[in-house]
Amino acid sequence: MSAKTNAPLLLCFDDELPSARRLAQAANMAVAPIERHRFPDGEIKLRLPTTLPAQVVILRSLNDPNEKLLELLLLAQTARSLGARHLTLVAPYLAYMRQDIAFLPGEAISQRIVGSFLAGLFDAVITVDPHLHRVATLQQALPATDAVALSAAPLLSDWIAAHRPQALLIGPDEEAAQWVAMAAARHGFDHAVCHKLRHGDRSVVVALPALAVRGRQVVLLDDVVSTGHTVARAAQQLLAAGAASVDVAVTHALFSGDALQLMQSAGIGEIWSTDCIAHQSNVVSMAGTLAAALTHLQDRIFSI
Amino acid sequence: MSAKTNAPLLLCFDDELPSARRLAQAANMAVAPIERHRFPDGEIKLRLPTTLPAQVVILRSLNDPNEKLLELLLLAQTARSLGARHLTLVAPYLAYMRQDIAFLPGEAISQRIVGSFLAGLFDAVITVDPHLHRVATLQQALPATDAVALSAAPLLSDWIAAHRPQALLIGPDEEAAQWVAMAAARHGFDHAVCHKLRHGDRSVVVALPALAVRGRQVVLLDDVVSTGHTVARAAQQLLAAGAASVDVAVTHALFSGDALQLMQSAGIGEIWSTDCIAHQSNVVSMAGTLAAALTHLQDRIFSI
Repeated sequence: MSAKTNAPLLLCFDDELPSARRLAQAANMAVAPIERHRFPDGEIKLRLPTTLPAQVVILRSLNDPNEKLLELLLLAQTARSLGARHLTLVAPYLAYMRQDIAFLPGEAISQRIVGSFLAGLFDAVITVDPHLHRVATLQQALPATDAVALSAAPLLSDWIAAHRPQALLIGPDEEAAQWVAMAAARHGFDHAVCHKLRHGDRSVVVALPALAVRGRQVVLLDDVVSTGHTVARAAQQLLAAGAASVDVAVTHALFSGDALQLMQSAGIGEIWSTDCIAHQSNVVSMAGTLAAALTHLQDRIFSI
Repeated sequence: MSAKTNAPLLLCFDDELPSARRLAQAANMAVAPIERHRFPDGEIKLRLPTTLPAQVVILRSLNDPNEKLLELLLLAQTARSLGARHLTLVAPYLAYMRQDIAFLPGEAISQRIVGSFLAGLFDAVITVDPHLHRVATLQQALPATDAVALSAAPLLSDWIAAHRPQALLIGPDEEAAQWVAMAAARHGFDHAVCHKLRHGDRSVVVALPALAVRGRQVVLLDDVVSTGHTVARAAQQLLAAGAASVDVAVTHALFSGDALQLMQSAGIGEIWSTDCIAHQSNVVSMAGTLAAALTHLQDRIFSI
């Protein structure tokens, strides 16, 4: 094979072409879109480039995940039949990582099932800030796969340092403690976490940390914001306690339904997110971080 | 184990509870609904009965298939972790059976991929009138599984005999020839098929068969109607050629978008379907046929 056909190729869907181009440029790879047709009955047909190199990388952020997971099944199997021998999934947002236990007997442990499904399709998976609680590593959720978990904390911390140099970083719940501490350490920010009690998808009670917030520029920092109820509730209480301003910095802008409005009407000023999920609030690109991980992975594969 | 815990259990989703109850009654089985919660971010959580017998049957008709296929993954794996040892999928409508070849190089052969996916989850699959063209048997599409393909042609033929005893049965395309002949033979109906040229999902040209239709009560008979364009076009031409009436009898009432309106405004009188896909046009229940196949399958499993 020529050097050209050996070069890995990045495949993406139309709706992620802008972020795929940023990633391809940073990783010095070629990018090709996947043709996708949706029949009137809801079935999907995919068409890939007819000649694939041995190494194929697929970019797919797994917000709104169900149909995308089925597409990944079609895509991965077809890529292999067209010559791909090593498949890497770059999923800046990885779905179903929060359902890691049967809270009630009989519940599906979706993290384990979806993780094994993806591990069966891909040789490697690269993601950013996966929401892991009760499992320690991404490798446990994705057995028998090269699983790489990157973090957006450093780049979000840099962004905050540039825009709120005196920020007080607050995580909306204890789960975020370690991650907030990491972001804070990079620029010496003060930091703390709230205590959260959840009564349902949209009903939460937030207790502020025992630390003076009066006059402070608070930045609420989280790995994922879905309905926005938790950060909205935290912001209201912080402002009531005298905070000078409350902004939000988040890796994954899921922002389901009216999340954005809810946050804005709670008095939140700026909302900053990474491009892990495409959204108007994106200010930080993960392309460089993802590209570095891809290059590292490829070097390792080539060296075997 | 007691006889009771050995008895197979039928699991179903809320939206298919009526047809599940009909099937359970016909097969003399207990039925239990699956709890399903949809999170605001689109993720789904399933909860099954905590104690499952060794034999579990799942009813899921796979119209609008993508999310349902992901649910079947969660469901099958969870059922096994709760004690099920033999899983049967009853999918009165089986999706993705038409994409059985790469029409253009690089296309996903979705039938093979989805078939293997289901075969990996279930020990047996029972369906009705799967739309197979270039593969001869359902077993080829579902390798390593007990695959049972039933037909609604006899029951649809009986319905037509009761309501249009002098019917002329016409299939809208050559693919339906064998199936229409089978339905016609049961009651000695005259029959023929049209010649169809397709130019896109919604653009079709239909050539009528060379046979007198003037004054005849025509019933267009097909295994599946999706957009309704083909039967609507055929009906218009049959009425223009002097047919006294045109009705439609179909196994799978997919009826995407405005299919029903389109068929009605083409001059079609009655539209009759089976309950393989729940729809207001359902007049024929497949419960008895499906139950007989289930019982036969269980007898075979028990006898091993």
